[in-house]
Formats: sequence, C-alpha cells, structure tokens
Amino acid sequence: MKKHGGDIYTAKELLQTDELLDFSANINPFGVSASVRRAIEDSVQNLVHYPDPYCRKLREALARYHRVNPEHIVCGNGGADIIFRFVRASSPSSAIVPVPTFSEYGEALEECGCKINYFEMQKPFQLTEALVQEISDGDYDFLALCNPNNPTGSLIETGLLYKILDTAKRKKITVLLDECFLDMSGDEYSMIAKINSYPNLFILKSMTKLYAVPGLRLGYGICADSDMVERVRTTGQPWPVSTLANAAGCAALKDEKYRRQFIEFLQQERQYLYNGLRRLGFRVWEPHANYVFFQAQGCGDLDKRLLKNRILLRHCDNYQGLDADYYRAAVRTHGENEYFLSCLQEIVGERSAF
Amino acid sequence: MKKHGGDIYTAKELLQTDELLDFSANINPFGVSASVRRAIEDSVQNLVHYPDPYCRKLREALARYHRVNPEHIVCGNGGADIIFRFVRASSPSSAIVPVPTFSEYGEALEECGCKINYFEMQKPFQLTEALVQEISDGDYDFLALCNPNNPTGSLIETGLLYKILDTAKRKKITVLLDECFLDMSGDEYSMIAKINSYPNLFILKSMTKLYAVPGLRLGYGICADSDMVERVRTTGQPWPVSTLANAAGCAALKDEKYRRQFIEFLQQERQYLYNGLRRLGFRVWEPHANYVFFQAQGCGDLDKRLLKNRILLRHCDNYQGLDADYYRAAVRTHGENEYFLSCLQEIVGERSAF
Repeated sequence: MKKHGGDIYTAKELLQTDELLDFSANINPFGVSASVRRAIEDSVQNLVHYPDPYCRKLREALARYHRVNPEHIVCGNGGADIIFRFVRASSPSSAIVPVPTFSEYGEALEECGCKINYFEMQKPFQLTEALVQEISDGDYDFLALCNPNNPTGSLIETGLLYKILDTAKRKKITVLLDECFLDMSGDEYSMIAKINSYPNLFILKSMTKLYAVPGLRLGYGICADSDMVERVRTTGQPWPVSTLANAAGCAALKDEKYRRQFIEFLQQERQYLYNGLRRLGFRVWEPHANYVFFQAQGCGDLDKRLLKNRILLRHCDNYQGLDADYYRAAVRTHGENEYFLSCLQEIVGERSAF
Repeated sequence: MKKHGGDIYTAKELLQTDELLDFSANINPFGVSASVRRAIEDSVQNLVHYPDPYCRKLREALARYHRVNPEHIVCGNGGADIIFRFVRASSPSSAIVPVPTFSEYGEALEECGCKINYFEMQKPFQLTEALVQEISDGDYDFLALCNPNNPTGSLIETGLLYKILDTAKRKKITVLLDECFLDMSGDEYSMIAKINSYPNLFILKSMTKLYAVPGLRLGYGICADSDMVERVRTTGQPWPVSTLANAAGCAALKDEKYRRQFIEFLQQERQYLYNGLRRLGFRVWEPHANYVFFQAQGCGDLDKRLLKNRILLRHCDNYQGLDADYYRAAVRTHGENEYFLSCLQEIVGERSAF
C-alpha cells in the first residue's frame, strides 16, 4: 500500500506501544460526538437487515443540509470509495492532476488505465492561470482538484476556480472537486450551490474529518448530472454504506452545536500551531483546514525523530512534486499541540540549522 | 438496481408500514449476538482512527478459525465487495457462470467488460459432468460457482467439484467458489482445507448470514495465491472494512456457542419449512443453507399475495434460467415459519391448483 496518514496500526506494531499521538491523520480531536455514538448503538439491532442500497434517509438529510436535490447525491464507503467509483463511472482516458495533492485521485485513475499528467504546481504550490491554459490547450477529459488542497491546506482563489470550471465545461472535461476539508475553511468557498451551472462537476465530501469518524467509512458525492450520480451508485456492489454509517451520518448532520464548537476551536488552534511552527523557523503554509503544512529545510527525518516522543507526523515525501523535507501536522487539542511544538523545539535545538 | 432479497426499505415505502416479516433475505433470525453488540459499542471510541487497512487482527482471527495462513485472507466491505474486487483483480475476458445463481457474479463480470456464458443447469438445477465437459472444451479463464447454490440451496456433489477444480486448474481457469452459506451445510463440503492444491481457487466467505449482520458489511476471500490476495486488497480504496466491522468480526468468531445453537436450530427448522411447503403441494428443493427454494407451478404472484400478510418473499423470476413461479424463503423463527406456512395455505386454498 502507498503511504497514507493515520496508519496507527503499523506504527503501533513497529513501536510496540498503544500510546501514540497521531498528528498524521487530520481528524477532529473532539472525538466521536455523543449523538453519533447513540445513533450507532441504537442501530446495532438493525444490522440484521441489509443496508438501504439507496441510502434514502441519509441522502434526504444531506440534501436538506446542502440545499440540493437528493437525486444529486450518492453515498459511499468513505470518501476514497467515492473517488474510485466516480473515476470508474467516468472511465476517463486522459486526466490532469495538479500536484502535490492527495494520492487517491491518481491511484483511482491508474487503476482504470487512464493516462495522467501530474501537473506540478510551482512553489508555493498554488494553482495559477497556468492550469487554465493547460486544460484549454490540452486534450484532457478529467481533472482532479482539491480545495483546500491536501497536504498544503491552501485554497483555490475563487475567481480562478470559476475560470477553471468554465474552461472545463467548454472543453467537456469531467471535474472531481474534493471539498472534504472545506467545512473548515468556510462555506463561501464551496461550489455546491453552483452545481446546476456545471453538470460536469462532481463534488466529493466526507464525514470523516469534521465528525471524527474515519473508522466508520462515510463519504458522498454531489453532482447535478443525475445520470452520473446513478452510474456511480451502480458501480461496484449494491450496499457500500453500512447501516451504522447511514444512521451515524443522519445524527451527525443534526449536531449543529458540535460542528460550531469544533470550527471555533479549530480557527484558534490552527493559528496557534501555525504561529508556533513559524517561530521555530520552519516555512509554514497558511492553514485553511485542520492541518498545517510546513517545510523543515534540509531535514528529512523529522517524522522519525518525533517517534521517540510517540508522535506520528505525516512525512510528505511520497507526494508527487514534493521533496523530502515537507511535513503535514494535524491540529489536535491545545495541550497536544503544545507538546508537539515543544518536542519540535528540542529537535531544532539539537540541530545547527534548518 | 437489480432485484435482491432484503430490500426492506423499498417494501416499507410501498406498504407504508414498518412491520414486515422478511423472508426474502437469508439472515439468521437469532439476531445480533450480545458479543458482537458489545464489540461494536466498545469500538465506537476507535472510530477517530482510520481502520487498519490490512485488517491484521481480523485476518489473524480468521486464519486461526479456518486454519489457513493470514496471508491467504483478504477482507472486504461485505461479500459483494469481495466479488467485485476479485473479479476486477482477475480481469477475466471469458467467464462461465452456471445458472440459476446469485446475480452478483455476472454483474461484477459485466462491469469489467468480460464475456459471459450463462451456462443453464437443467432442472433440478444441479451441476453435472456437462460443466466439466464445457470448461474442458471451451476457452474460459473464469468460472463462478456457488456452494450451496443460491437460490436452490443445493450442494455440489464433492467428487464432481474436484473434477471441476482439477479441470479448471489444468486449463488455467480462475475459480470463484462462493461458500458464503456453507457453514450451514457442514464443514466437510468446504474446499478451504484444499486451497494449497488449487492456487487458481478463490473462496468467498461472508459473515453476514451466520452472524445476522448484513447491515455491517463484512466478507472475506481465501486463496493460496498470495499475489492474488494482494491484488484484491489493493483494488479500490485502501480502507474498505470499517473499524466496527473489524471488531465485530473478531468477536463473532469467538462466539462458538451462538454458532452451535444456530446450526442446531437451523437443521430442525429448515426441515420443518421444507416439509410444510411440500405438504402444501409445492415442488421443494432439499435445503442445505438457511433458505428453502420451491416452485409454485403456474403461480407467479405468490410474493405479491403474501404482502397483504406483511410477508416479504423472494420471487426468483429475475434469476437467469428460472421461470416466474420459483421462490426462495428464508428460515426464520419457528413461530414465523408457522405463520408463513399458514398464510400460504390460505392462498393455496383460494386457488384451484398449482
């Protein structure tokens, strides 16, 4: 398997310990909400039935939440499942993927035998007009975008995003726009309200990050093209979403308080982590999600050094277009972030320079 | 979506009632065991982590249970997920599928663009030497078998099964052998102990039926070819099995008592259902799983008539190779089976003949 964040099981095996601080997976540190826990416990008795293959209740709840038509929503076994099924349903032949970004787009495209142009963004890894030019001139039928981007946490400038979407529409390019972390940036950046103008646009959402349930597997896609939605739904097995995930998703959406408290906390805390990392002399990207991306110039083993502090940090060396000295740290609780920064300070102190 | 058993959500919508007796899905009527429930509740806190992409603990538990190497096991999001991923990993070009059988094999093969020969078994829909002849003469690279078969509940005669597997091995045909219901027939019919002799054999198992948890989504495959196992694992997303399914699976395997009690109950109760259906004048197949297959000659609307009794019966008219008067009834509790038979008796009484 390619390297991902959050593989605590391998780390625990290597370190022979159960006590790890996982800064490698971008999960809300508030933990599973009481309402989600209750929904799961109340649904155990319903496991005796197959899940609803259409995820009716969940799709209706999502439709109300996002103010879209339920027919424009398809649910899956985590965001990654939706990526693979959407790519398969689109069966593209020539894709462009601006990098560095989340590796799953490329993996899903490769599995389909699609030709991929990994379009390298120049440092500071921000999308520019160059992408508009490239898709306008090129012969692509698929584009994958991530907003805010993973691992950088940078947002796509809104005017530029419209230009990209308009060009893609004109050139009949299918666009996968991953908004899995966008709840944490602000709804004003979302394209969900604009789907009717872009039937070629498929927006990816996940419930993993905001609601702290990556172990549950629950993601969904939003697209104004109902035929595409139906194709994604009928790609692969008929029951990808478990009964427990269906119930938990409905409960999570109702939990406005949990959401608001987390977003408030996050805005403060990511700033704290950002400032702390800058003070240590790292080059740090302004965070718009629940993780902070930084470069420790010339230091390619920060993650290994932090293991002695039982800290898992995401080394970004396997991202296309990144060197060995880039890292991504999840925003955790204040105390944990403090501890993380103090451990880093020690390492910085031991070294002459970064 | 093609018709499957157990879509209670559509039925509830149509009938506007929540109280349905679902004889259409073959689920253990004992319900979710206390140990599985506890395992799920205890694991909710672990949802904050991604699931183990390798399902290490579960695969080790399955390996002990089946006395195979953990490297020969791959887990998935239900048996259906394993079918789709295995077919994709095999990427066959010409398959043979004896029918009537479970529709998922064909659906997965069609999704891959594989040519399929639906090889019709003659009534009473039992595999014969004709299949050995066909795969020996033909140019197939994939064969799907179901033992005991769904929907008939018939077992493949053991001597014949060896002949089929030997011929498939000689002709380099990949074999998918679905043993999802075999726990209910007797371990002596399983080929799991023989996988080392047949590296081309991939055995499908599900935890859905025996442990009454189809809503959880948990299935697995067993194959002596570790490369194939790895290919299946890396097909699609990296985290197909939820944290809750991983934990529930481990707990279920330990619950020897639940298993034993269910099998004892089942052996009695399916005989009761079999006898009752025969007494009503139906043609009934000897059951080896937790469902009974029967023909109500000339009566293609039994399922619709039973809806007024709030009973869901699986009409088998959409199985390749079956006419409109075949049905499959799950074995439920004694009282429910009694009620089912009495409702049928009423319908039979209303009609002159079947």
